[in-house]
Amino acid sequence: MAESNRRIVLSAYPQGRPTEHTFRLETTAALSPSEGEFLVRNRWLSVDPMIRIFIDERPLGGASPALPIGTVIPGPAVAEVVESRHPDFAPGDLLEGRFGWQDYAVSKGQGVRRVDASVASAETALGVLGLPGFSAYVGLHLAGEIQPGQTVLVSGAAGAVGSVVGPLARARGARTVAIARGKAKQRYLIDELGYDAVIDWSAPDRATQFATALPGGADVYFDNVGGGLFPAVLPKMNRLGRVIICGLMAQYDDATAEAAPRDQLPEVLLAIMRLGLTIRAFSNTEHEALRAPFLEEVGAMVRAGAMPTLTHVETGLERTPAAFARLFEGGVTGKLVVKV
Amino acid sequence: MAESNRRIVLSAYPQGRPTEHTFRLETTAALSPSEGEFLVRNRWLSVDPMIRIFIDERPLGGASPALPIGTVIPGPAVAEVVESRHPDFAPGDLLEGRFGWQDYAVSKGQGVRRVDASVASAETALGVLGLPGFSAYVGLHLAGEIQPGQTVLVSGAAGAVGSVVGPLARARGARTVAIARGKAKQRYLIDELGYDAVIDWSAPDRATQFATALPGGADVYFDNVGGGLFPAVLPKMNRLGRVIICGLMAQYDDATAEAAPRDQLPEVLLAIMRLGLTIRAFSNTEHEALRAPFLEEVGAMVRAGAMPTLTHVETGLERTPAAFARLFEGGVTGKLVVKV
Repeated sequence: MAESNRRIVLSAYPQGRPTEHTFRLETTAALSPSEGEFLVRNRWLSVDPMIRIFIDERPLGGASPALPIGTVIPGPAVAEVVESRHPDFAPGDLLEGRFGWQDYAVSKGQGVRRVDASVASAETALGVLGLPGFSAYVGLHLAGEIQPGQTVLVSGAAGAVGSVVGPLARARGARTVAIARGKAKQRYLIDELGYDAVIDWSAPDRATQFATALPGGADVYFDNVGGGLFPAVLPKMNRLGRVIICGLMAQYDDATAEAAPRDQLPEVLLAIMRLGLTIRAFSNTEHEALRAPFLEEVGAMVRAGAMPTLTHVETGLERTPAAFARLFEGGVTGKLVVKV
Repeated sequence: MAESNRRIVLSAYPQGRPTEHTFRLETTAALSPSEGEFLVRNRWLSVDPMIRIFIDERPLGGASPALPIGTVIPGPAVAEVVESRHPDFAPGDLLEGRFGWQDYAVSKGQGVRRVDASVASAETALGVLGLPGFSAYVGLHLAGEIQPGQTVLVSGAAGAVGSVVGPLARARGARTVAIARGKAKQRYLIDELGYDAVIDWSAPDRATQFATALPGGADVYFDNVGGGLFPAVLPKMNRLGRVIICGLMAQYDDATAEAAPRDQLPEVLLAIMRLGLTIRAFSNTEHEALRAPFLEEVGAMVRAGAMPTLTHVETGLERTPAAFARLFEGGVTGKLVVKV
């Protein structure tokens, strides 16, 4: 066993976007499992936008308790069991769990899932076959039946969740339209993920791009972004359209970062009423029953080459904070992971 | 037959709240049915908040075409057939349809329903057993299953729709909480409609009233009002709560009338995500299949005395515009109708 453990802890609550002062790399004594526990060595760390919520001084406007300063960042990871005093886990087992941004972790097995490396490479358990993929599957399920030819619009389309929504919606017969920032992702979105059209939200002619990409409006809007995009998309929805709020990445740094100089709520409510829209948010925990069909369908798509598993890999635990920052700069295509 | 027809037409598009210049009473030649048409004499006119949308210069922000100046206000009415050249309708038939704010109307029978005066007095076909009642029924249906003991919160609770939502939700085992303006309606809401608690939205201590009336939060919010109440209610919702947007009366005069000095949309989106809410709007036309069960259930409640049919009656066609204005002043309890 190693004689120490390196870990990334919360150093200071960020005001707005996280800085170099937000996280701290520290070295502690080696971890050791007690009876009923096991020790894992992290192989792959997941770097997710959602982490920004957990490290806020007042998560979700104070609705959740703040993470204490000095706590290991509780991100998901793929790890290998190296020592076990738990009857169900043995050295060599490959697991996915919220092991945190560190070299090693001790676990009682709660919320841990076994990784089947025969389906796809292990880190895929953090992406297409993990939390982001499952979120994509659950969200699209909650959008209800998609008629062939209906249009599914996806924001943050080149991100970890969006990368799964596109091919899944396409498999259901939908026309798929991506919203992403920057021209660099367009090839990936069209050639790899099969999107029918891409809207570059950062371009000055985005209004024209909207009109061109959505000649018949949108029937489903799968939103990973929130912010200023939301009220721009709503009037493009067709009657009885469904909006799935999966993430609000544009608002995680600062709840009011994307606020307009005027109150946009009244006009959004009018649009919802006028179009008979359904707006729906969810958390995966309430839909565990969908886990098996998700793994079956998406696993089959991965094996058949119909679901790209593009992973953006950074190497070295110490580079995790910088990787996290890149996520919010729009410089990541596919699922972002750190190889420890 | 009468030798003339009096009618209320749109005289000028209102800016904000309608004034005496918005409507004009005029007298035209008597109407006469052609082959395949029939003539009705209006007995009861329905005065609905929704009319405000129809008479706007840019209905719903320009999404619907404006009603031309000089057009009869197209409100629903209960009327009696007085002359018929249509095989399905005969003099004496009592009908409900969009006959407009006038003494007489000619119809081809489209969108017309027969009124069964044996269930309840005829004007009830404009309220509890008509459009407002059906909206209440459809909206509550779309809110999904209500577990006994769950809390249903209703805004505009003393209005035509709210008056039906309360007893219906109560019949499904819900605890019901009303939001209304002014103390005058409280007796009606508690004694007649059986609400468990009432929040006076116009009172200075409304925040305290919210806390007292909703100790366990709200599971369903049935919204008839929109405006500034919406963002105030959202944080009171329980996880997986359902919000039904049936009407946005506070915004009909002016889409931005209830706007806050800052953009409330970002925090509303965060609340939706955090609580896993579903926000749902609808129009009755897509739910005609619910018409029969609605009439059966609410008709039975009316007969059993379990569904009050309180009607606020004004008399005389010429008083319809003034009655319409009162609706927005909060001075109406129950369904507002004009006896022609």
